[in-house]
Amino acid sequence: MTPGRLEAFSDGVIAILITIMVLEFHAPSDVSVEALKGLCSPFACYAMSFVFLGIYWNNHHHMMHSVEHVDGAVLWANLHLLFWLSLTPFVTQWMGTAAHPFAPLPVAAYGVLLLLSAIAYYILTLTLVRVNGKNSKVAQALGKDFKGKISVVVYLLGVPLAFVTVYASLALYVAVSLMWLVPDKRFEHQRHHG
Amino acid sequence: MTPGRLEAFSDGVIAILITIMVLEFHAPSDVSVEALKGLCSPFACYAMSFVFLGIYWNNHHHMMHSVEHVDGAVLWANLHLLFWLSLTPFVTQWMGTAAHPFAPLPVAAYGVLLLLSAIAYYILTLTLVRVNGKNSKVAQALGKDFKGKISVVVYLLGVPLAFVTVYASLALYVAVSLMWLVPDKRFEHQRHHG
Amino acid sequence: MTPGRLEAFSDGVIAILITIMVLEFHAPSDVSVEALKGLCSPFACYAMSFVFLGIYWNNHHHMMHSVEHVDGAVLWANLHLLFWLSLTPFVTQWMGTAAHPFAPLPVAAYGVLLLLSAIAYYILTLTLVRVNGKNSKVAQALGKDFKGKISVVVYLLGVPLAFVTVYASLALYVAVSLMWLVPDKRFEHQRHHG
Amino acid sequence: MTPGRLEAFSDGVIAILITIMVLEFHAPSDVSVEALKGLCSPFACYAMSFVFLGIYWNNHHHMMHSVEHVDGAVLWANLHLLFWLSLTPFVTQWMGTAAHPFAPLPVAAYGVLLLLSAIAYYILTLTLVRVNGKNSKVAQALGKDFKGKISVVVYLLGVPLAFVTVYASLALYVAVSLMWLVPDKRFEHQRHHG
Repeated sequence: MTPGRLEAFSDGVIAILITIMVLEFHAPSDVSVEALKGLCSPFACYAMSFVFLGIYWNNHHHMMHSVEHVDGAVLWANLHLLFWLSLTPFVTQWMGTAAHPFAPLPVAAYGVLLLLSAIAYYILTLTLVRVNGKNSKVAQALGKDFKGKISVVVYLLGVPLAFVTVYASLALYVAVSLMWLVPDKRFEHQRHHG
Repeated sequence: MTPGRLEAFSDGVIAILITIMVLEFHAPSDVSVEALKGLCSPFACYAMSFVFLGIYWNNHHHMMHSVEHVDGAVLWANLHLLFWLSLTPFVTQWMGTAAHPFAPLPVAAYGVLLLLSAIAYYILTLTLVRVNGKNSKVAQALGKDFKGKISVVVYLLGVPLAFVTVYASLALYVAVSLMWLVPDKRFEHQRHHG
Repeated sequence: MTPGRLEAFSDGVIAILITIMVLEFHAPSDVSVEALKGLCSPFACYAMSFVFLGIYWNNHHHMMHSVEHVDGAVLWANLHLLFWLSLTPFVTQWMGTAAHPFAPLPVAAYGVLLLLSAIAYYILTLTLVRVNGKNSKVAQALGKDFKGKISVVVYLLGVPLAFVTVYASLALYVAVSLMWLVPDKRFEHQRHHG
Repeated sequence: MTPGRLEAFSDGVIAILITIMVLEFHAPSDVSVEALKGLCSPFACYAMSFVFLGIYWNNHHHMMHSVEHVDGAVLWANLHLLFWLSLTPFVTQWMGTAAHPFAPLPVAAYGVLLLLSAIAYYILTLTLVRVNGKNSKVAQALGKDFKGKISVVVYLLGVPLAFVTVYASLALYVAVSLMWLVPDKRFEHQRHHG
């Protein structure tokens, strides 16, 4: 197993995920303006998850590009991450359903998924550093991985907040996305100088 | 991130989109000739969207082939285009539903999606020219991008027309597709002489 | 556009088609033995379409490997083939529905799709020969393309037969598949001596 | 057809399968805690099938990497394996349905699919050894293929057990997965010394 193959497989899974989400975004059964209004919450959730998966694709892709060695442990740490990401269409649909848009339980479930994905990503970085060594390109590039750690903390706050006010939770989820939207300079920088 | 990877990811997303649209094209529940007649409007919409995505695939693929440099801005401009394209199966299903084939609101929504996709494509070309320079291959090949600009204008006319007569809107949408069906000589030419 | 990219895109579309067909093969709502019996016709149709798409993948892949030049015409002839293939999940589901398994109209519709796919494949071969020249590898390998022509004729017989007896139609469809299941010696031979 | 193309096509199909399974995992229609409880059995089945497909991907990928020659027989032996794997989303959904979680008939059907997949994998290994020769890398790496044979035997026991007690069946299915979760040292070893 080469890093290239793992990258291609992961890119494939994320490309499929980001695309099939639309199948859970059903056309309304009528053609009234009310039907259009009922699309607001599923559309907002769809856009949020699209950006979320786009960030994972981008960062995962950059990170794997710095990697020189992979083994069985990396492979399963990577599949573990893909497992949680693969549930994105499910929570997106549940949270956006027009009959109960942004209800506390689905918003919390969405946050739990974001949290477990962030933890899985963190485990993957630890595994990569262990396999490639503390002086490897990927280890130096990750550094203290401040963003990875703060994401976990913010999601941990966001989940219980959903039962108080869902808007605070959603604001925290969006804040983490914005933090990551800035491309990860660590890997970009390294590729030019590595 | 190399242009090759971006191209492969985009090709993958478009290949998936063009294929999963069929999952929104449901088999009728009976086997009468009336059931067959009810398939006309979903089939027409399916064919129209297939050609629409085929054109994007072809032109996007040609354009990315002329590109030498990509950065974070290109990546997000590209994901922005894929976001609007990814909603194609949704509007296709809504517009083609046999219970209300080609109703004004879904026809307008379809046009809005075509418009937003065309704008996203235009933003992507601007970003590519900015990153690669005014004398780059891709900038010279794009030239004044007459087709891209006229597409936006025609779609802008087509959307409100849907509330007057849907057939005029549909004729405009098809006209833009026919204009693009001719392979883009700009990039073909360049690749032979570049 | 290189033959390699066209091959990769086509392989991708066929891989997706062959896989998403299962989404139209719904789990029964109960767990009785009768439920299991109701799965016979959808399963038979699923297996038939899986083999049908597997044959197209195999032969298309072999043919594209002999190709040296592609242009806009080849690209659209190829998308035309993918268009008809992409409707396979739709007719498979209609023909196999347990409430009316193998009814004449869906069996005829299935045959029409097989016919249109075979014609599209034939058009693609003509286009490839025209672009690559009569002395090209692909032209010599295709030769008189007896299999391609006889498939079209047999499907032309099979479609009207569905309204007399569906079993005769199905037998003809299966016969064509068996004829193609033998790997195409023309291209295999050439690749070893070409 | 090169081993690389066969590997890429198979990787693609498995990536799609592992991803589209989520489309059969529907969001509940309400947002109560009971709805959450009803997700337990579909979630458990989803996780089980994700691991099952992950193992096939990993081992299939490793094996194909040792392969030097493929022919038509290998290609169809491989499609035969993909055929059974492609039915995974179907049995996963049936076994996990909240209205009748882990009922005997679906648990047995799940085991039959595991069994047929294991047999198809075994046939593929035999075909690869026949084509590549008894002294080939892949033949030496497979050796006596103890794991492949014992999987078939355990699944043969698991299927009838479902009608006595489903938990014994499920325990056997999980046991086989755990046995395979350990990466296949045979191929890992060879790639370093081959």
